[in-house]
Amino acid sequence: MKLKFTKMHGAGNDFIVIDAINQQIDFTTAQWKALADRRFGIGADQLLVVEKPTNPGCDFRYRIFNNDGGEVEQCGNGARAFARFVAEKGLTQSRSIAVETMSGIIAPRLEDDGSVTVDMGAPVFDPALVPFDTEGLAGLPEGDDTLWPLVLELAGEKETVPVSVLSMGNPHAVQVVADTDTAPVELTGPLIEHHAHFPKRVNAGFMQVVSRRHIRLRVFERGAGETLACGTGACAAVVAGIRRGLLDSPVRVDARGGELSIAWAGDGEPVYLTGPAVTVFEGEITL
Amino acid sequence: MKLKFTKMHGAGNDFIVIDAINQQIDFTTAQWKALADRRFGIGADQLLVVEKPTNPGCDFRYRIFNNDGGEVEQCGNGARAFARFVAEKGLTQSRSIAVETMSGIIAPRLEDDGSVTVDMGAPVFDPALVPFDTEGLAGLPEGDDTLWPLVLELAGEKETVPVSVLSMGNPHAVQVVADTDTAPVELTGPLIEHHAHFPKRVNAGFMQVVSRRHIRLRVFERGAGETLACGTGACAAVVAGIRRGLLDSPVRVDARGGELSIAWAGDGEPVYLTGPAVTVFEGEITL
Repeated sequence: MKLKFTKMHGAGNDFIVIDAINQQIDFTTAQWKALADRRFGIGADQLLVVEKPTNPGCDFRYRIFNNDGGEVEQCGNGARAFARFVAEKGLTQSRSIAVETMSGIIAPRLEDDGSVTVDMGAPVFDPALVPFDTEGLAGLPEGDDTLWPLVLELAGEKETVPVSVLSMGNPHAVQVVADTDTAPVELTGPLIEHHAHFPKRVNAGFMQVVSRRHIRLRVFERGAGETLACGTGACAAVVAGIRRGLLDSPVRVDARGGELSIAWAGDGEPVYLTGPAVTVFEGEITL
Repeated sequence: MKLKFTKMHGAGNDFIVIDAINQQIDFTTAQWKALADRRFGIGADQLLVVEKPTNPGCDFRYRIFNNDGGEVEQCGNGARAFARFVAEKGLTQSRSIAVETMSGIIAPRLEDDGSVTVDMGAPVFDPALVPFDTEGLAGLPEGDDTLWPLVLELAGEKETVPVSVLSMGNPHAVQVVADTDTAPVELTGPLIEHHAHFPKRVNAGFMQVVSRRHIRLRVFERGAGETLACGTGACAAVVAGIRRGLLDSPVRVDARGGELSIAWAGDGEPVYLTGPAVTVFEGEITL
């Protein structure tokens, strides 16, 4: 069986994208894993399969498979690659595309410069929903009730780090640093990820404020270590910065894998992430 | 500019192979590096460019570029991918192909089962040529003058490990272990690589003898750490095993990335490596 695919990335998060409308696709988990292997297969973080919608109000359905073969929920970087793919392949003429995903209907929008904007949902601040166990902790006296003092133990020494705690569908703890290049991401990232106050662990963000509309960001992702670009991490950092009075929407975010733009109108409003989606090459594989 | 390429691997060592006979190719180092990037490009250990020969006695010329953009010498796994590529693309009808490389003319041979045999040259045992500094060391009393006692210091404890020392164009120190799965490759690999007796460092091989014609092998490569399949490491291990009276040629080598077969007729004779070369997919990229 011959399979045509497109290799894409969004700020370094990379995808094998497959048109399952014009091709018959029927894969086992083992076959997905084999395709995702970077030496023996095509190689990607995730596989993205574009299908006909089952819901008549939608233009497409798409499914995402992690490189361990398992199907996963929404992914901001994947939604951008999806939107760019259906436009480039002429599968739609729309600029705003209604898509069924495992986690509901999303509507990525193609911008004139080829970037794509995705509604990432509203941030959640309730500690119980993050989840974040605040027992024994007092909020910091800065007027922002999402800012907390986290105590880290480094080589026997205790250090208190103020972190903004919120959820973008997954938990984040964001701190401000003077310079992301010298921030101790590898040293304290694991300590924050596994901190006792986060029962489901947490993504650790390290944000350098360049100006009120520009940050640099590194994210130590839960279960993955530092990654090139974490979409929800960029949203969480900008929300934290706006909440702390340091930033004004929209904010340019320089992540290691590329540049994103985040817009947020304030509490209760959704966060919009705009970022690149790049087609790297076209391929055909025999399975 | 559109570039057609083929992604291949040989026992997990992977290549972007480019036909520069039927395509005009002119790349900068930065472009090679970009193609080799596993997220932003195609991704590979090396790029392999197939050209017309400059020497009239040869069928082809090929060049290998590492994923840092630099041009490198011969590579056993690359020679197999090259031979399979020119046969599959119909660029030759020969089964034994004369190829110009940076390090001289080689003649990979296509086998009936699709695997490829490459002449890896004769092993070199002279310590000065490995290079291996034997000062203060006495050979082990096993009748094999390539077997030496290497003293490793682990957490303050000294341990003597008998290693066979030889060169296959690059230096190797091979030890016999009871089980490659439990061998301390990550712990002692770096100690052997940087051992004071090896002025240009050394590749550390860990060989489990399954039978007289079958070994399992892990190799901690100089400057690279443990790799999936080291062609010269497989040659060195089998030569060491034959020299020590443990193996008979030809020997099946189970490496982590796949199975190789090594044949050696004895001192002064070349080592023949037979192994797989697999086409993974065909692609086209716009540069």
